[in-house]
Amino acid sequence: MTQQPQFNLPDVVQWNDGKLFLVDQTRLPQELVLEHQSDTKTLFASIHALKVRGAPAIGLAGAFGAVVAAQALQGVPQGEFLTQLQEQADYLDSSRPTAVNLGWALRRMMAKAKSLAGASNLQILQALEQEAIQIKDEDIASCRAIGEFGKGLVKEGMGVMTICNAGHLAVSRLGTALAPLYLAHLDGVKFTVYASETRPLLQGARLTSWELTRAGIKTKLMTDNMAGHLMKLGRAQLVITGADRIAANGDSANKIGTYSLAVLAKHHGIPFYIAAPFSTIDMNTAHGDQIVIEQRASHEVTGFRGTPSAPEGMEVENPAFDVTPAELISGIITEKGIMRAPYLTSLQQASNR
Amino acid sequence: MTQQPQFNLPDVVQWNDGKLFLVDQTRLPQELVLEHQSDTKTLFASIHALKVRGAPAIGLAGAFGAVVAAQALQGVPQGEFLTQLQEQADYLDSSRPTAVNLGWALRRMMAKAKSLAGASNLQILQALEQEAIQIKDEDIASCRAIGEFGKGLVKEGMGVMTICNAGHLAVSRLGTALAPLYLAHLDGVKFTVYASETRPLLQGARLTSWELTRAGIKTKLMTDNMAGHLMKLGRAQLVITGADRIAANGDSANKIGTYSLAVLAKHHGIPFYIAAPFSTIDMNTAHGDQIVIEQRASHEVTGFRGTPSAPEGMEVENPAFDVTPAELISGIITEKGIMRAPYLTSLQQASNR
Repeated sequence: MTQQPQFNLPDVVQWNDGKLFLVDQTRLPQELVLEHQSDTKTLFASIHALKVRGAPAIGLAGAFGAVVAAQALQGVPQGEFLTQLQEQADYLDSSRPTAVNLGWALRRMMAKAKSLAGASNLQILQALEQEAIQIKDEDIASCRAIGEFGKGLVKEGMGVMTICNAGHLAVSRLGTALAPLYLAHLDGVKFTVYASETRPLLQGARLTSWELTRAGIKTKLMTDNMAGHLMKLGRAQLVITGADRIAANGDSANKIGTYSLAVLAKHHGIPFYIAAPFSTIDMNTAHGDQIVIEQRASHEVTGFRGTPSAPEGMEVENPAFDVTPAELISGIITEKGIMRAPYLTSLQQASNR
Repeated sequence: MTQQPQFNLPDVVQWNDGKLFLVDQTRLPQELVLEHQSDTKTLFASIHALKVRGAPAIGLAGAFGAVVAAQALQGVPQGEFLTQLQEQADYLDSSRPTAVNLGWALRRMMAKAKSLAGASNLQILQALEQEAIQIKDEDIASCRAIGEFGKGLVKEGMGVMTICNAGHLAVSRLGTALAPLYLAHLDGVKFTVYASETRPLLQGARLTSWELTRAGIKTKLMTDNMAGHLMKLGRAQLVITGADRIAANGDSANKIGTYSLAVLAKHHGIPFYIAAPFSTIDMNTAHGDQIVIEQRASHEVTGFRGTPSAPEGMEVENPAFDVTPAELISGIITEKGIMRAPYLTSLQQASNR
């Protein structure tokens, strides 16, 4: 039997008896609540509010969202079914702009539906349900492969920095950036993770610290502005983060703060890795400047969970992501192996495998 | 008449009718409360809890704290007065380790007291009161001089980044890092300040954003992890921060996150300046590795003004300061002019002026 981290956490995207459930991640770690997503409007709001977050998990939620849409459309005339399903897919795709996995999953679902043009609404629905379940299975397998390819980077006694949450709560089971850590830990390697808290929404504090600690991995929480100081003190030998969209040249969009970590890592001679499945790689985006960066509401920066931190009405910056240029990336850990520069070549070749 | 920023804020350290009052900065900006410091124990707790913070303001609070101690000791035998006063000064000096100004002010106060050995307790008290008032007057003059020397760095249309609060609320009137900004603003220069929120205690969000906005300076609040991204977008042309202790070689301790900002500034070719009075320069500390970095309680990192952000009992890092090496510092703006590398020479020469 394959080894699993013992963190005793449910899957964050669940398909149970034909219904979609999400763990509401905005309430973690204080409350663990599964929310039923009864229609696409509810799901749109959940994705937008980051109740489900992490590029692969958003993709998975989108895939099952297409099934939820297909359920609701069972009664429409067969000739209108695919058109209306496409409208619902486009609607869900507009909930967040930066992560590529959402669009990727919805395009794959629609391709499956269109390949069955002429079949009954019910037949298409059943095929879509199978397709979404298959995406989830592939996602779990990808994470494990990322972990297997990446775990050799994690050596005894190391300090490993990460930002945001690219773990179980972002994906399926092992996560992306955290998969190498989980598998190294299961192999008995001892190391310390420095989890950057990740303002404004504190995914590092709320989610990464939580799931790693539950799995028995030694984890220290730091505020985002401590990374440089701790690197200077020699506390980190490796940085691994996830990604929300990787351009064909290797430029990688990820949670705001990732770029600063990459620059700091370079200054201190520390290897900086991205971990992501190929569904995050967007060969249609040539380089990072073409990636749309989502700007979010100011209240996220002027407070936390309703507690104000700044004067009322304060003008803020709130980009949700930044782009780390390929030249700062030591390697991209994927389910097909660790990609190395020049990425345009390595990503293209592996895409065709 | 000398021009003043129109922020309509009280001095944070006040000596009124022989009593010491502090603005409780932990409650800003929501509440503006002046707290009477009736004895040294109260003041120790206020300094430790950051009710008063900012290296020069802590020094000033310490100076008036010595007066408060001298008041309480009026009834002791004349022969024991100086010994007991020294004990009180040592006690206050132990409230925070990193900022040099506290020890500097207390040593200056004790030197004044000891120069009057043989005088009555009352005569020494009166002399100490005058000395503390003089330290405050000198502090105000130093800030203005820092502003005058530094304001030429702030050009029309610039973006200027700063971290923590080295403004009116940290010092007297104009502050240190913010003094050049206030004077440039009064000269009609238009620029935008990017205030880094400064986790864990959010001095940038609560204090810097507040005082700059009140003075009519265009200010945008950002989380600490956004600095690199905004620099990459070309939004900042200058970084100015304060300092808590500057070593003889120019290495500068300041609020955690300053070092990361300096590394990011270097990577993007942006000038990085420290602004501080000579009372912050410690010629007895040869270099930054000798500066003691205060470690603070974990609850500051696991929560956000009382709202929990991390699992209970989470292990954290919480260094309150970091050290920026001299080679990353473009200049140190002081009341004697802008010091340039090699700092060992420039600081030594100016110290003797």
